[in-house]
Amino acid sequence: MTIARRPGGRTARTRAAVLAAVEAELLDHGIDGLTIDAVAERSGVHRATVYRRWHDVGGLLADALAAGREDGWQPADHGSLTADLVALNRDVVEHLAGERSIGRALIVASYRSAAAAAALRDFLDDRYRRCEVVVDRAVARGEAPAGTDARRLLVAATAPLYHEILLLGGTVDDALAVRCATDAARAAAAGVYR
Amino acid sequence: MTIARRPGGRTARTRAAVLAAVEAELLDHGIDGLTIDAVAERSGVHRATVYRRWHDVGGLLADALAAGREDGWQPADHGSLTADLVALNRDVVEHLAGERSIGRALIVASYRSAAAAAALRDFLDDRYRRCEVVVDRAVARGEAPAGTDARRLLVAATAPLYHEILLLGGTVDDALAVRCATDAARAAAAGVYR
Repeated sequence: MTIARRPGGRTARTRAAVLAAVEAELLDHGIDGLTIDAVAERSGVHRATVYRRWHDVGGLLADALAAGREDGWQPADHGSLTADLVALNRDVVEHLAGERSIGRALIVASYRSAAAAAALRDFLDDRYRRCEVVVDRAVARGEAPAGTDARRLLVAATAPLYHEILLLGGTVDDALAVRCATDAARAAAAGVYR
Repeated sequence: MTIARRPGGRTARTRAAVLAAVEAELLDHGIDGLTIDAVAERSGVHRATVYRRWHDVGGLLADALAAGREDGWQPADHGSLTADLVALNRDVVEHLAGERSIGRALIVASYRSAAAAAALRDFLDDRYRRCEVVVDRAVARGEAPAGTDARRLLVAATAPLYHEILLLGGTVDDALAVRCATDAARAAAAGVYR
């Protein structure tokens, strides 16, 4: 192995190969088919290395979610609160709806592993925190009153969409994403989340 | 066996014993530990009978959820939209939060069985339909404008709570149940769900 090791001793290339294998195995076989052995085989990384670094399936899932936080993503400014919330909801639909959704697979997995559940909470908490700027901009534009609770507004905009996708099984389309975002923006304008 | 059989051939007593065993096994061992054999043993109902009537674990879960729809439950009239929504949200907290929540166990199970997922959707759809009267009463009282979309308002009141309980892992307490209900009632008053 000539790949340079970072101070932590884990190479970025090994990690990328292992996490790509985790996602592929999750999509192909679901959480029940996810094993250290299958990930080692698929990634071409030695089984002992996977065990040593990730310990178990929960460790693999937690690291896949931790990796999702390293993308530097920030919400773009679309010029209005409604447009910004619509964009966030379109992201939710893109990542959770559909047959082969890695986001959905990770959510299902989080119910089977305490480590994955904690990593999922951290991932979502980080996402909501990055989105608070959307509410700051809305207050600055006068679209929502000062003192609007950013997290409450963001959850109000997104939660009905998660609810439809994950539990209610209704039609999840762009119109639903737009409607949930618009309802929350109108409620914010009325001062509901102050 | 001297238990009277109903026309469908399934006795109410056998069903009650089997479904009680399903809930107890789910709470004790989770979806991974739920087997036809364990349910037969715990309920004292013959294994062959359980197989014949419920076919598999998905059939048992689906019937547990179907049984939940037979309770004749209707939302009580607490005198205001906010109070009615608060009562609904307290029900959600009571059934989903806490260590031994059968509701949560059934939701987790629904990710593992298409039959259970369909039964969960039917259960929730039926619950939301029964709650529409809450919005009818609010419109009659002048707390929300005519033309308010009952389902949209009900999902807005409850979804943030499900989101916190099932995904975000934040503190789920009475204050959260009240706040989600109050926010939705205020948004409804502002005409958001029209």
